[in-house]
Amino acid sequence: MSVKAANAEAIRRLTAAEPVLVDCVPASEALGLERHTVLHAGPPIAWTAMCPPVQGAIAGALRYEGWAPSETAAIALAAQGGLRFEPCHHRGAVGPMAGIITCSMPVFVIENRAFGNRAFATINEGLGRVLRYGANDESVLARLAWLRDEVGPLLGRALRRKSLDLRPIMAQAVRMGDEMHQRNIAASALLARALFPSLAREANGPALTRFVDFLGDHDQFFLNLAMAAAKAALDPLVGIAGSTVVTTMARNGTEFGIRVAGCGGRWFTAPVNMPKGLYFPGFGVEDANPDMGDSAIVETVGLGGMAMAASPAVARFVGAGGLAEALRITEEMREITLGEHPHFRIPTQDDRGAPVGIDVRRVVATGITPLINTGIAGRKIGVGQVGAGFVRAPLDCFTAALEALAAG
Amino acid sequence: MSVKAANAEAIRRLTAAEPVLVDCVPASEALGLERHTVLHAGPPIAWTAMCPPVQGAIAGALRYEGWAPSETAAIALAAQGGLRFEPCHHRGAVGPMAGIITCSMPVFVIENRAFGNRAFATINEGLGRVLRYGANDESVLARLAWLRDEVGPLLGRALRRKSLDLRPIMAQAVRMGDEMHQRNIAASALLARALFPSLAREANGPALTRFVDFLGDHDQFFLNLAMAAAKAALDPLVGIAGSTVVTTMARNGTEFGIRVAGCGGRWFTAPVNMPKGLYFPGFGVEDANPDMGDSAIVETVGLGGMAMAASPAVARFVGAGGLAEALRITEEMREITLGEHPHFRIPTQDDRGAPVGIDVRRVVATGITPLINTGIAGRKIGVGQVGAGFVRAPLDCFTAALEALAAG
Repeated sequence: MSVKAANAEAIRRLTAAEPVLVDCVPASEALGLERHTVLHAGPPIAWTAMCPPVQGAIAGALRYEGWAPSETAAIALAAQGGLRFEPCHHRGAVGPMAGIITCSMPVFVIENRAFGNRAFATINEGLGRVLRYGANDESVLARLAWLRDEVGPLLGRALRRKSLDLRPIMAQAVRMGDEMHQRNIAASALLARALFPSLAREANGPALTRFVDFLGDHDQFFLNLAMAAAKAALDPLVGIAGSTVVTTMARNGTEFGIRVAGCGGRWFTAPVNMPKGLYFPGFGVEDANPDMGDSAIVETVGLGGMAMAASPAVARFVGAGGLAEALRITEEMREITLGEHPHFRIPTQDDRGAPVGIDVRRVVATGITPLINTGIAGRKIGVGQVGAGFVRAPLDCFTAALEALAAG
Repeated sequence: MSVKAANAEAIRRLTAAEPVLVDCVPASEALGLERHTVLHAGPPIAWTAMCPPVQGAIAGALRYEGWAPSETAAIALAAQGGLRFEPCHHRGAVGPMAGIITCSMPVFVIENRAFGNRAFATINEGLGRVLRYGANDESVLARLAWLRDEVGPLLGRALRRKSLDLRPIMAQAVRMGDEMHQRNIAASALLARALFPSLAREANGPALTRFVDFLGDHDQFFLNLAMAAAKAALDPLVGIAGSTVVTTMARNGTEFGIRVAGCGGRWFTAPVNMPKGLYFPGFGVEDANPDMGDSAIVETVGLGGMAMAASPAVARFVGAGGLAEALRITEEMREITLGEHPHFRIPTQDDRGAPVGIDVRRVVATGITPLINTGIAGRKIGVGQVGAGFVRAPLDCFTAALEALAAG
């Protein structure tokens, strides 16, 4: 198959995806996770190379699981080789920021009805002090316990009662100004509204009100679902011989990794960049950790920074200007992509489809790398989020992938 | 006070409004409606001058109230002078399309916290066969009975538990592509998400699930709230001596009426125009009733067609082109308005405020009349909605108002 035909097949599969949210179950069950296995965002990495917020999130997860009584004990366990680390992506999952998943955490199950494959993601914890940004105090662990003991089982019952087709929600949300990385308010509100009928049938009293209170102002609830839907859409491309389309972009806080359809599961990595953006009061660039998280899977499917034109409000929020700059960014992203998404359509571009199918050849030829919207984590353990902005993928991993493709 | 100072005060009051949804109670209680009183949209009108969909809606309301056993009996009662007709606007209320309100119907109570005044609107019935479009079969009356017996009391309890500040919801929805006349999906989803915590505390079992099922796909639920919020914002302008700012635009299906701040409660009317737009399959312009409803209050507060730039999707849906045309329409509306709304900001115009404060002087001087997005009702009794589009307010009512202002 020619590269052209291989890429056409890649675009066909990618845009034909039908992600459906079907269940929520413990990671042990969904991903086969064992005790002392810790999944993290981005490409493979050793404990000693991990950045502090990822180490902090791991320390929190170990205390949450009861594998270590304290942060000191958790760090000692990790340093002594007592844990098995693996990328979320190697188990069919994706995790925002630090991306930590351990066996007792509930994960959403997204099925791609067009191809039968499944992808997984944890329940988004909300904003403020949360594990994914490296915070790990008692409030963080208590919320994780509540998600495990009450929310996960409730969501599982509600979704087994009635699954939710995510593509129409995502398509509608793009029309409502969500680029689905930095901004998920539309998708979160639409999903909440669609979930309530089943939730109200499966719970009542405090268990119901606690969760609907949580959903009531959680504007990023949908992020993890968008990520898993994107992964479910991209996984059928893995292994299309000759295809130069990117199937994964992910960061572990130290390295940025991509994978390309024609190279299967192989990672191509380069050091991560530092996001540019806006900081919360009291924080500045000196407090920031470099780029982190599996959430760039959203850009890999044509949303996030790729679809900045759909979210002029995000362009302003992350410091990238207004509508004109948002339009310019998406036009630039069209230079490195092969298709337009038939379902994710951008109102400010007269319903033109989002740019989809990042081609490593075009990235290398133009020197234009994908623009990614992102949260910014504090660089020290336990700080949490310090800002939000945008970042460029590093060129070197695309160059390395193209060389590998050329070598056959 | 000079006209300039009077209009500055009008804009100040209009943009300072803080509409809060505080309750839902029967119209008898909220509006003091008596038996055999029927409120309708638009300026005052006699039974014989009413268009068929308004007459059909009235016939349905009489059967729903038990004042007539059949459509024939209802029409006879109306024709014999057995009813008192009054505009919704005369009782502090607004009604979409036919706008019929009778005493047992539950109405939302919106309080303008900045000025202490209140405005009222019924609960939106949903799409399809509904009373406001002149449909009046058993399914329509059964839904009205359910809204009266179950939904209204539940909403009242939920809102007395926790009132909802509408301005932030509306401001956010404008950023999400709602112009809040033709498109209310964002506001409806945000409101539903904000309501659920109180609903889940005030109901359970079938009463809860029936209502959350209804909310689950009701994308125009917020329309009536946007209308009442707009009226609550505009009423404090009534009677500002010398002000040329429009405080009401409303249609009864036969005449278009406006009121102007400096002329208090006086109506200036002209025949309504026929909307241009798109028709549902099987219908065409020959099936359409002319322009109808109090919903143009949404344009009067700077949203709807005035804020078309916020909703390029609506511009396309109503047949007015894409983003460029949407931007052009809002720019044109800026020629006849005096201010920009500090809270309702349009992302495609780099967060510039929506055009607010329609000035009858500017309308007459330019010949540009407000552009109104609207549903289109079938012109025969019982048909219901046949399409959606946009319509221009007729110039003559603005000319008449300006003459009255000039005459002092």
